[in-house]
Amino acid sequence: MINLLDHLAAALGPGGVIIAPEDIAPFGTDWRGLVSNMPRAVLRPRDTAGVAAALRLCAAAGVPVVPQGGNTSMVAGAVPSRDGAELVLSLSRMNAVRAIDAAGLTMEVEAGVTLRAAQDAARDAGALLPLSIGSEGSAQIGGVISTNAGGNNTLRFGNARDLVLGLEVVLADGTIWNGLRRLRKDNTGYALRQLFAGAEGTLGIVTAAVLRLARAPRQRQTCFCAIPSVEAALDLFARFRDEDEAALYAFEYISGAAMAVNQSYMPDFRLPLETASPHYVLLELATTRRRDPLRETMEAVLADALEAGVITDAAIAESEAQRAAFWAIREHLSESQRRAGASVKNDVSVPVAAVPSLLARAAAMLGARHPGARMVAFGHIGDGNIHLNALQPEDGDAAAFAARGEDLMEDVNAIVMELGGSFSAEHGIGQIKTHAFGQLRSAAEREIMRRIRAALDPAATLNPGKLF
Amino acid sequence: MINLLDHLAAALGPGGVIIAPEDIAPFGTDWRGLVSNMPRAVLRPRDTAGVAAALRLCAAAGVPVVPQGGNTSMVAGAVPSRDGAELVLSLSRMNAVRAIDAAGLTMEVEAGVTLRAAQDAARDAGALLPLSIGSEGSAQIGGVISTNAGGNNTLRFGNARDLVLGLEVVLADGTIWNGLRRLRKDNTGYALRQLFAGAEGTLGIVTAAVLRLARAPRQRQTCFCAIPSVEAALDLFARFRDEDEAALYAFEYISGAAMAVNQSYMPDFRLPLETASPHYVLLELATTRRRDPLRETMEAVLADALEAGVITDAAIAESEAQRAAFWAIREHLSESQRRAGASVKNDVSVPVAAVPSLLARAAAMLGARHPGARMVAFGHIGDGNIHLNALQPEDGDAAAFAARGEDLMEDVNAIVMELGGSFSAEHGIGQIKTHAFGQLRSAAEREIMRRIRAALDPAATLNPGKLF
Repeated sequence: MINLLDHLAAALGPGGVIIAPEDIAPFGTDWRGLVSNMPRAVLRPRDTAGVAAALRLCAAAGVPVVPQGGNTSMVAGAVPSRDGAELVLSLSRMNAVRAIDAAGLTMEVEAGVTLRAAQDAARDAGALLPLSIGSEGSAQIGGVISTNAGGNNTLRFGNARDLVLGLEVVLADGTIWNGLRRLRKDNTGYALRQLFAGAEGTLGIVTAAVLRLARAPRQRQTCFCAIPSVEAALDLFARFRDEDEAALYAFEYISGAAMAVNQSYMPDFRLPLETASPHYVLLELATTRRRDPLRETMEAVLADALEAGVITDAAIAESEAQRAAFWAIREHLSESQRRAGASVKNDVSVPVAAVPSLLARAAAMLGARHPGARMVAFGHIGDGNIHLNALQPEDGDAAAFAARGEDLMEDVNAIVMELGGSFSAEHGIGQIKTHAFGQLRSAAEREIMRRIRAALDPAATLNPGKLF
Repeated sequence: MINLLDHLAAALGPGGVIIAPEDIAPFGTDWRGLVSNMPRAVLRPRDTAGVAAALRLCAAAGVPVVPQGGNTSMVAGAVPSRDGAELVLSLSRMNAVRAIDAAGLTMEVEAGVTLRAAQDAARDAGALLPLSIGSEGSAQIGGVISTNAGGNNTLRFGNARDLVLGLEVVLADGTIWNGLRRLRKDNTGYALRQLFAGAEGTLGIVTAAVLRLARAPRQRQTCFCAIPSVEAALDLFARFRDEDEAALYAFEYISGAAMAVNQSYMPDFRLPLETASPHYVLLELATTRRRDPLRETMEAVLADALEAGVITDAAIAESEAQRAAFWAIREHLSESQRRAGASVKNDVSVPVAAVPSLLARAAAMLGARHPGARMVAFGHIGDGNIHLNALQPEDGDAAAFAARGEDLMEDVNAIVMELGGSFSAEHGIGQIKTHAFGQLRSAAEREIMRRIRAALDPAATLNPGKLF
């Protein structure tokens, strides 16, 4: 290993290899604090050639490499799976926005650019990078793509994978694949960019990407609604989709319980309605059109919905500040739950129509099998994607609750699978959900993936312990 | 082989194996008439289990299998690559629309359903399957997915791959992968459905799919414009995209030369404008909105464009019949070119802004290197995808022109590659473009694909001679 590190230091130049324990510590622990495995060293290449040189040397030495961007994985996907045995390869120094084509609506960025920096660069060019997630200030493009990140605008624009027009990837053996094309259409062979996107760094390391942009919207209307039931939330969704499918940029569900936790632990983010409700929806319409005020569309649909009993109250943001305040509620739900104690996170999806059934069955199951656990559900209901979190009993013991996390997750996943759903809608597998992956996806499906992985990384040195 | 055919007949039941030469003949020739290789027999399984049983028997015997749907490939992708040595497996008997969820906007169909039948079923349920190609009356869903078909609405809704939510695939060894999920979001492992989509039947045989639908539009406006230059066509595109990005369902370019050939050979499809122009655009706006008449948007943008000299004339369809007449022009361009003699088809794409350069350079090259050849370009200019066809000289010899087809294609592709484009935007590789694929895509890219193919089909019995 010492010999390898010398070679790596020579290949990567000054600052390219970090070995001091205090410096590498932050790279070994995921941000949720679920896993802490120190890497043997951290590699910080400056460019694609550096990544290739590092991987070539590591493959020859049989030493595993864990790619890491902003280290914001929800499933410990970017930290080592064993202590002291792996190298972390950080993409942080590859942080150039290489080009923006505002007319062609594309941008080329290196893997280490944060999602927010990429959004800002697109906005400065008059365009929209239509991907937004809670961790966007830290999450880097390479990780965003490698985990096929979702978020609030997936409803309208798809996940990260759908925004990737081109990719540059370094394989385990150091081969560089330059697929940085800027084409809307290209049917020459297999969907490699889609395959590497979402592969969690197990098939290759993403070093740069060409992303698809959208026209920046000229109008935006945001509202916060009180809803009597989950069914009513879907009814409201159908009404807006029916009225103007293309303008529906976001449609988020917040349960009364999740809102109550927010009110208790983060009172700055206040309910923008006069009275509490068992359910809420935060939704946003946007469009490039100058004509046809979206405000009128929103008011018309809400008025009809109010009359039909589909909503009981609604507040439309009157300013950009109020819009930001509405979204701040949504964005702080995870943090308020963290302050409220131990919670078990289930990032699940079902066919959209099955969401009411999912929530009803999960509530009944928790009451029967995990008494006292508080269900604090919220999420992207328009995609059928619910963060179905369970919070410890109010006066209970955090450690005891956390210890039952695996059982609780299995109980939730059993319901999800019966409804034809997914046990990881956004977060991926990493090293936290490998067990569920092994249990809940078919042998045929996993065998196909295993064969593809072995074909591209025969020595199994890329991000071991993840997925399988 | 005789023993194998007996086993296959037993496995597939009555009508499951065709061996009479007159019956198998249509399965051996592609519709463009480029390739004619008779299969040894044609297999016609009724269900997924039949496909699996057939592939298992063929893999054990080492006999290659060519999956075939509507046999409408533009690159001979669905007919054998050698004479008398391969079996064709037709999906035609698997033609059930299994389910439509109009609220959830999904449909589950078997591979042998024609695209038009799937469109009709979606429409009957009040939804839109937003994929439309010239061959939709014959093309089957399995082939549409396996070739990642594009067409006129790709601009708004993406290619076939983008519409696939779930897939069922049978691998070369007979393993069935049931990935028929109906989820908008699922991050559990690799992008298998995207990988099998567009794999041209070389990684597995698609037997069924869950497709994403859209809300049926309530308004639609179609217009046919005369344009002074290719640059002006892109200017008009930018104007409409700027005005209402989401309503732009189609934006098609037709060169004056392509229109002239149409007028000569298919005079029924008349120019809907008073005078001829060097360039035309056929565009369509659509929306689910009731409010805000699209007609006004279209008229306003056209009026501004006329004043700015970006268009010189325009006709807006006043009826569904007139709209159909506009589209009939577009849809008969290939047929009129066929009647005009031998042509060399180049289905290419470049970054959208590079289209004028592509057309100018191709015209200059043809004049210099292929005197007399007529450039008859048309296509999906909003995606940067041009069908850059070259038609034989008016009084020239068809055979002599066709004999120079490879050279001409290489000359076009050289320009396309310099512009960062693709030599096959929609049509795929099949067995017609394997040479270009070998020449124009990097060794690294092809090696990744080769390894994936070998991993999933180690005995190389699935659609051999295609892609590589």
